[in-house]
Amino acid sequence: MSDAPSTPPDNDATDGLLRFFHLAGRLKETPRAGWALRGVASPESVAEHSHRVALLALVLAPRARPPLDVARCVALALVHDLAEALVGDITPYDGVSADEKHRREDDAMREMAALAGDESLLAAWREYDAAASAEARFVKELDKLETVLQAAEYERRGDAAPGALDEFWDSAGARLTLAGTRALLDALRRERADG
Amino acid sequence: MSDAPSTPPDNDATDGLLRFFHLAGRLKETPRAGWALRGVASPESVAEHSHRVALLALVLAPRARPPLDVARCVALALVHDLAEALVGDITPYDGVSADEKHRREDDAMREMAALAGDESLLAAWREYDAAASAEARFVKELDKLETVLQAAEYERRGDAAPGALDEFWDSAGARLTLAGTRALLDALRRERADG
Repeated sequence: MSDAPSTPPDNDATDGLLRFFHLAGRLKETPRAGWALRGVASPESVAEHSHRVALLALVLAPRARPPLDVARCVALALVHDLAEALVGDITPYDGVSADEKHRREDDAMREMAALAGDESLLAAWREYDAAASAEARFVKELDKLETVLQAAEYERRGDAAPGALDEFWDSAGARLTLAGTRALLDALRRERADG
Repeated sequence: MSDAPSTPPDNDATDGLLRFFHLAGRLKETPRAGWALRGVASPESVAEHSHRVALLALVLAPRARPPLDVARCVALALVHDLAEALVGDITPYDGVSADEKHRREDDAMREMAALAGDESLLAAWREYDAAASAEARFVKELDKLETVLQAAEYERRGDAAPGALDEFWDSAGARLTLAGTRALLDALRRERADG
């Protein structure tokens, strides 16, 4: 940017913001890695997953007891996978330790927040990543719930072999503890049992 | 649902909610029709578009002057194309009048809000559709801005023939009037001119 000294200072901030939104657009091209690993042919993108997690937050957070900050839940949902725009969707099968994954994602979020000129993006991602609030713990359940919703849809459409996605059901069963998310998981299981 | 009289009443509400989230998932499979019409081979989905519109709202709404209700902007962004889960992405080339498009989408949103047991979804969509608030008018600009961001990315990647997406640039040029969205459009244009 220093090679354009005649540019008003404001343009640097706008160019950074533009770069941030271009990077965010990469989530449209970033496949959710867990599906491909289990044989789903055309897996959804991280952006598609994130949109439904945010919708889950918008609709379910107002029903939570004790009450949650709904706007905060939605914001956490929108940014929870944003680091993947730079580092990709790292899975437990990639030979990357949890600490190293965290370090890479934290670096990515620092870079993206700096480009956007918005440190609140980094704070939101860190709050989610560390499960540091009731809102973050709620959205972590929504992330699991969205995943098992998608697993059910792939199974129904025949996009996954029978049993191939069982571990997502098991994971959701072990981790969904709140009344609202648990009721939806139970309904999904009834639907699956009924074929 | 009446064929399961032994089901506790609560299950009906949960089953409706589950059906709502399955319908919302169709946005992952709904291509943005404008791109395919102009020769883009693998166009993005409505869910992908909606995710970046919501991120634009989360980052840009706090900077707007006079101030906007940020949470409202994000909510409108998340639901602005939700009716397309039922009626698809109707374009001006589909031979459907604006009134008929509105009627179909309003019917779809009434159905989806009823399933979710959440009339605020219908109210949010109607507020956006009618541009009935400063927040709705802001998100309508973000919808255009996200579209031209995507147009620029398709052009850069060679996914569209030269000139094929010009009308999206023209449309954004005519309709983006707020300082924040206009500055980003100008930065996008500089980027395009520099190749």
